[in-house]
Amino acid sequence: MIKQTFAVIGLGRFGSSVCQTLINAGAEVLVIDKDEARINAFKDIATQAIIADAQDESTLKSIGIRNFDHVVIAIGEDIQASILVTLMVKELGVKYITAKAQNEYHARVLVKLGADKVVHPERDMGTRIGKNLLSRNMLDYLDLSSDIKVAEIKITKNSFVGASLASLEFRKKYALNVIAIRHDKKIDISPAPSDALILGDSLLVVGYQKDVDYFNSLMDQ
Amino acid sequence: MIKQTFAVIGLGRFGSSVCQTLINAGAEVLVIDKDEARINAFKDIATQAIIADAQDESTLKSIGIRNFDHVVIAIGEDIQASILVTLMVKELGVKYITAKAQNEYHARVLVKLGADKVVHPERDMGTRIGKNLLSRNMLDYLDLSSDIKVAEIKITKNSFVGASLASLEFRKKYALNVIAIRHDKKIDISPAPSDALILGDSLLVVGYQKDVDYFNSLMDQ
Amino acid sequence: MIKQTFAVIGLGRFGSSVCQTLINAGAEVLVIDKDEARINAFKDIATQAIIADAQDESTLKSIGIRNFDHVVIAIGEDIQASILVTLMVKELGVKYITAKAQNEYHARVLVKLGADKVVHPERDMGTRIGKNLLSRNMLDYLDLSSDIKVAEIKITKNSFVGASLASLEFRKKYALNVIAIRHDKKIDISPAPSDALILGDSLLVVGYQKDVDYFNSLMDQ
Amino acid sequence: MIKQTFAVIGLGRFGSSVCQTLINAGAEVLVIDKDEARINAFKDIATQAIIADAQDESTLKSIGIRNFDHVVIAIGEDIQASILVTLMVKELGVKYITAKAQNEYHARVLVKLGADKVVHPERDMGTRIGKNLLSRNMLDYLDLSSDIKVAEIKITKNSFVGASLASLEFRKKYALNVIAIRHDKKIDISPAPSDALILGDSLLVVGYQKDVDYFNSLMDQ
Amino acid sequence: MIKQTFAVIGLGRFGSSVCQTLINAGAEVLVIDKDEARINAFKDIATQAIIADAQDESTLKSIGIRNFDHVVIAIGEDIQASILVTLMVKELGVKYITAKAQNEYHARVLVKLGADKVVHPERDMGTRIGKNLLSRNMLDYLDLSSDIKVAEIKITKNSFVGASLASLEFRKKYALNVIAIRHDKKIDISPAPSDALILGDSLLVVGYQKDVDYFNSLMDQ
Amino acid sequence: MIKQTFAVIGLGRFGSSVCQTLINAGAEVLVIDKDEARINAFKDIATQAIIADAQDESTLKSIGIRNFDHVVIAIGEDIQASILVTLMVKELGVKYITAKAQNEYHARVLVKLGADKVVHPERDMGTRIGKNLLSRNMLDYLDLSSDIKVAEIKITKNSFVGASLASLEFRKKYALNVIAIRHDKKIDISPAPSDALILGDSLLVVGYQKDVDYFNSLMDQ
Amino acid sequence: MIKQTFAVIGLGRFGSSVCQTLINAGAEVLVIDKDEARINAFKDIATQAIIADAQDESTLKSIGIRNFDHVVIAIGEDIQASILVTLMVKELGVKYITAKAQNEYHARVLVKLGADKVVHPERDMGTRIGKNLLSRNMLDYLDLSSDIKVAEIKITKNSFVGASLASLEFRKKYALNVIAIRHDKKIDISPAPSDALILGDSLLVVGYQKDVDYFNSLMDQ
Amino acid sequence: MIKQTFAVIGLGRFGSSVCQTLINAGAEVLVIDKDEARINAFKDIATQAIIADAQDESTLKSIGIRNFDHVVIAIGEDIQASILVTLMVKELGVKYITAKAQNEYHARVLVKLGADKVVHPERDMGTRIGKNLLSRNMLDYLDLSSDIKVAEIKITKNSFVGASLASLEFRKKYALNVIAIRHDKKIDISPAPSDALILGDSLLVVGYQKDVDYFNSLMDQ
Repeated sequence: MIKQTFAVIGLGRFGSSVCQTLINAGAEVLVIDKDEARINAFKDIATQAIIADAQDESTLKSIGIRNFDHVVIAIGEDIQASILVTLMVKELGVKYITAKAQNEYHARVLVKLGADKVVHPERDMGTRIGKNLLSRNMLDYLDLSSDIKVAEIKITKNSFVGASLASLEFRKKYALNVIAIRHDKKIDISPAPSDALILGDSLLVVGYQKDVDYFNSLMDQ
Repeated sequence: MIKQTFAVIGLGRFGSSVCQTLINAGAEVLVIDKDEARINAFKDIATQAIIADAQDESTLKSIGIRNFDHVVIAIGEDIQASILVTLMVKELGVKYITAKAQNEYHARVLVKLGADKVVHPERDMGTRIGKNLLSRNMLDYLDLSSDIKVAEIKITKNSFVGASLASLEFRKKYALNVIAIRHDKKIDISPAPSDALILGDSLLVVGYQKDVDYFNSLMDQ
Repeated sequence: MIKQTFAVIGLGRFGSSVCQTLINAGAEVLVIDKDEARINAFKDIATQAIIADAQDESTLKSIGIRNFDHVVIAIGEDIQASILVTLMVKELGVKYITAKAQNEYHARVLVKLGADKVVHPERDMGTRIGKNLLSRNMLDYLDLSSDIKVAEIKITKNSFVGASLASLEFRKKYALNVIAIRHDKKIDISPAPSDALILGDSLLVVGYQKDVDYFNSLMDQ
Repeated sequence: MIKQTFAVIGLGRFGSSVCQTLINAGAEVLVIDKDEARINAFKDIATQAIIADAQDESTLKSIGIRNFDHVVIAIGEDIQASILVTLMVKELGVKYITAKAQNEYHARVLVKLGADKVVHPERDMGTRIGKNLLSRNMLDYLDLSSDIKVAEIKITKNSFVGASLASLEFRKKYALNVIAIRHDKKIDISPAPSDALILGDSLLVVGYQKDVDYFNSLMDQ
Repeated sequence: MIKQTFAVIGLGRFGSSVCQTLINAGAEVLVIDKDEARINAFKDIATQAIIADAQDESTLKSIGIRNFDHVVIAIGEDIQASILVTLMVKELGVKYITAKAQNEYHARVLVKLGADKVVHPERDMGTRIGKNLLSRNMLDYLDLSSDIKVAEIKITKNSFVGASLASLEFRKKYALNVIAIRHDKKIDISPAPSDALILGDSLLVVGYQKDVDYFNSLMDQ
Repeated sequence: MIKQTFAVIGLGRFGSSVCQTLINAGAEVLVIDKDEARINAFKDIATQAIIADAQDESTLKSIGIRNFDHVVIAIGEDIQASILVTLMVKELGVKYITAKAQNEYHARVLVKLGADKVVHPERDMGTRIGKNLLSRNMLDYLDLSSDIKVAEIKITKNSFVGASLASLEFRKKYALNVIAIRHDKKIDISPAPSDALILGDSLLVVGYQKDVDYFNSLMDQ
Repeated sequence: MIKQTFAVIGLGRFGSSVCQTLINAGAEVLVIDKDEARINAFKDIATQAIIADAQDESTLKSIGIRNFDHVVIAIGEDIQASILVTLMVKELGVKYITAKAQNEYHARVLVKLGADKVVHPERDMGTRIGKNLLSRNMLDYLDLSSDIKVAEIKITKNSFVGASLASLEFRKKYALNVIAIRHDKKIDISPAPSDALILGDSLLVVGYQKDVDYFNSLMDQ
Repeated sequence: MIKQTFAVIGLGRFGSSVCQTLINAGAEVLVIDKDEARINAFKDIATQAIIADAQDESTLKSIGIRNFDHVVIAIGEDIQASILVTLMVKELGVKYITAKAQNEYHARVLVKLGADKVVHPERDMGTRIGKNLLSRNMLDYLDLSSDIKVAEIKITKNSFVGASLASLEFRKKYALNVIAIRHDKKIDISPAPSDALILGDSLLVVGYQKDVDYFNSLMDQ
């Protein structure tokens, strides 16, 4: 298995977080930013750290950007720079480009220029926080598709307390599969049908949006 | 069941995304921003939309901020404003405050002033994207705890193709529970033990980080 | 014959010159600019003159931009705006887009987004002026292809003076066709073979670059 | 034949394009700009490249500006600088000055101060693009005088197809001389009277504006 | 008795005045400011003078801020910096923090973050000047509590002139204790009951606000 | 007794604090500031509130500035404005002018132009805070002259506890007069010789600087 | 005698001073400035006062600038505007133009564009003040030509005191003509040969520079 | 005779003109300016040239400003700096201070702080130009007092031509003394009574304002 290589262009909050995650996992990461202070923060932990303007095509060539498996274009506020760098990186032949967008139009331009994945950190995290806020008992969620969700829901109804998973018949009554149970801070990822629920436990379930919402609404009543 | 009420202060990319999510779910949402154009974008869909500087305590009082169940302080770049508004909203007696932070110090101040939840969209999304990049076959992930994950992993090895879930013995061999199978764009959330895998299917599994990583690395080889 | 319709976005020096030319020819022209003073200069002569930011997609839709035969995106210094407007105009279905670029990268982005013609006024006029400067006797030129030119060359050699076109055998000796003769300020576009050249006349010829250059160099000696 | 020498003051888009054209033709070119990055782009290809403010008269003297045959004053946005440099260069005795103007008033000042030729790239290119847009079939044009034009017109009418040039009687019927025929990408600059036209060919003609327009309108019907 | 140590962060007018006072009294004082000129003014008289941004936590650690007995955070206009530095200094374990606030909200944040004393120089001095202005005869004042004051009042009534302190019965008639008498520029801090008042003397008295005001109003009549 | 009248020019932190103090005491106060928001904060409580630039002499005349008993020139950062307004107000004949200075030079100019009292809030409060910091047991102080002080000192030595004021012989041993005793939050401004001290009480004393410092140092040991 | 008419463009310190002088003498004056406050200061005393940008040629035409006898272009810092307005005013046919220059180059451009008189207030007044400073006894001076001066010189030598003008033989000894004598504040413009000088009188003389300087140097010894 | 010494603070157009005049006359001149380029222009011709901020009192002391006979404070736009430097220079004991003012208020402050002479170049030159404009025949003027003038007036009336000075009886008829006659470019400063006037000569006369104006009006008819 050949180790993959990464280049991260732009070390703002998003870019430096991507970078730190990759470095923590032991990946080879090259970082580029115009700002010396930002580069200094990574120069001892990244494989290579370069103070440069990525809009300068000769810089991109001289560091051999085409040889990287993934390039993350995490340029912050400067939409023009983000667009030009995406163009250059794509034309230089990089296989997989992840680019950060500021808005829908920016995203559409990036896709047309060949970005493989476009992310909107502020917008996407806003959606996630918004969903969590909607129910005091739904602790986190994951979209599997537009209508299938994984959700963690807290048990707040006495009618569920003391009952075994088997007796509660989640699949039959609520069309949900129970994946795990969180009790205090401990998680059981292989719950037995005989396990009984305690007030304050939370269940990780998978199911259709409408079924997840229905079960959650029972807890919110 | 009494309907919960939300106030979102600041309609930047993060705040407007929180807002849109809440509105889509039918929640009552009041929005505040200094910028008229931003307010206009919400004035027909939010319950109430106010052009005001939230740093003006009399504004917060006159709109009865204390009566909202959740207040989301989504003020963008202006750390000072974020801090002062968090102080005021807390002192006015709001029960649950979610605030967006720009950096670790900002987050620590917000917590000391009483914010119940502090979010860092750019940093958190960076972590998520970084993890996804690390494996071409791990499509998404969710942290249940610091060492238990839900992950979606693409099947790319011929040795897995054609085998039934039962014969693959995921629990025994890989210490993972299979929650769902994605085939093309369809997801089966109740996979039967006799279901056979096809090249390109992806599995949603739950398990310890190390076990998830190990299985994923088999796919990446 | 149905009259064609034009929209010009951006009324800087280039855009307003395009516009004036179209209006002088009696065309239907809609103009858009953010600047009121610029719009005022056209409001009595353009078919429609709108003060608006073309980056606002709803504006483009409300004026029915899709119905125009040609859209000229003459946005000046703001590369980001130029890119976003080109994206929107293309996606709204306009048939023919001419866009002004600031540099090569900008041009490449515009082409990828679907601009049919990209112009660089400063660069292109610089090339033209540079060529004119190179010879004191070549008064103007037109590229028919990369190696065939139309050029106007001044007669400064006594050996040519008094000779008839026929006797000078342009086609045979210089591989050039004489299209016209300029004498003082009068131009004869049907020169007769018997016409004799006078010192200071200039000839409009068509031929290969190398032949044009050779003949011109005879005059410069 | 003595080689001519050029100085180009200002290396914006227009100035650097003039410069590149002159250098490509093998001319001796001195370039002056205040900006180091711009000078660097020319320092290996120009005869001499100087980082200086041309408004400093002692600089102009020390580089012997009076000895250059042509000086191109391609100063961009700064009208005041353009004016002062034109004054100085003229007073130092330069024989031929080409200066770029931003608007009509600027042009009139430059002429009064002694500029031999004044160019307006944005305006002039706008006129050219405007004319091209007006007819889908007129591909390019050149003004010989205010009423005589060279134009390239595409043949789109079946009634012209298959006919020989002789039979079409261009001179008699349309008062136009045919200079060349473009067929696919090949150009024949010595068309024979017996040559027959094919749909999609384009003709390079010379004639009075009204006659060119009339013939072009036949194609646009 | 162990000598106390002080650190003053920010050398604006307030900070440098605190600093100068401490240095005049022979204290050990470290000063920090971003501005080199300000540091230069103290580098020969302070124990240690550092050009640094106090918002950089590593700087605070490297100078051992935790070892100082008192830290004065005298950061001027930048409320955000004042807040972040207060947070860091407190978390690093400093025993006593004095911080300057710009307004009430700022003050409340500083208190929540652990500042032991918050001062508002402009506001507090405004109150003091305002009180002095209110009576031409009250020369200075000191708040012992919200209703007990020390005040210096000028004697301007002939009815008091020539009478001894004993005969005037201050305690009985005016509920005031006379602490000192100022005669010309000499102050007698042990006035004898037999001392007689002279026109223009001023008395230092202690008493309840209302009694001080009453006596002062007698002088103002 | 005729009521005095005040005008306060400039409503920054210092000016508005002076103003509030005067208004609280029931005085007639006119306020002037260029900033509408600042004037609005006082328009219902001041006798007159005017949005104007005090540097405009006609404004000063039209409001009859000469008729005010005291004018406070509390202009903040703009030294030039402070100087010009002081000049004008003095020349218009105002009897008593208090002006705020930014630094020593500014103060000297104001005095030369006729200001009766010049205050430096930041510097003066810095001195006061600096003195308080120097002793943990000296709680506040007041300068009666350059060498006579009123100070409040906390009793922290067991040798003083339980002893009566008479037995402690303050006047004889420490050359200090005891003016008041603070016990918890209650202040006794007529302490009896028989009153005994309790640990944590503080004494308000008057005496020479050196004697105050000596007694204070006993407490700090 | 037909009354002359004046237009003053630009009401900075120089322009408003020109204007006031003309108005004081009863002349008809039109003033133009972009700044409303400056126009307001003249609107009641000038014949016509217009808020406009004089760089707008249509404004100059609509006010009939060509009909004014004198136009003073007193535009301050904006050299470009000064140049363009001078061009326009000249081309519109004004008979006499006085223009203010910022420096020598500016002056040369203005002269080339047709300004009849160019003034440099700062430079010219600097020369005058410099000359006055050079001698404590030369009180003022006027250049009649480059070498003939009118000067006022104070008598400080006893050897001149008491002597009559006749006996001092100014014309013979010093080559100077005495025009007037200033005694205290009274000036005698018809001094008699018998008038005797008093210490401190000053003489107004006319003569060659070298003779004026010589006589003045006698006084300075 | 001891040579006088000068210091000029500020080398804008006015200050550098004062300076150049003093240096041309051979005086000892020290110059101070913050701007290096301005100092460079004088460093080879002034006695001493210092790059410094004159607002720094220690600079003024270190160069021994008190020892200069005259100090010219020619600080341009920065009124505050002009005021502070005037204060410092005065307090350091300079004997004679000339200061440039921007407006009347500035001038009054400078006088109060001790400036011996205050000049307003723009205003004063505006007055002079205004007066010259008022008469086409009065070529220049000098104020001896508020009502006595020296003026140069051009002879434009035939009735004066050919007449001798004696016959014209200037003193008797016009109450003017003729000081000199300018004929072509030659000036006769000792005109004989028999000299006859020629059309276009100009007379230098001294007299009361009203008499000068009357004679001038004869020429303007």
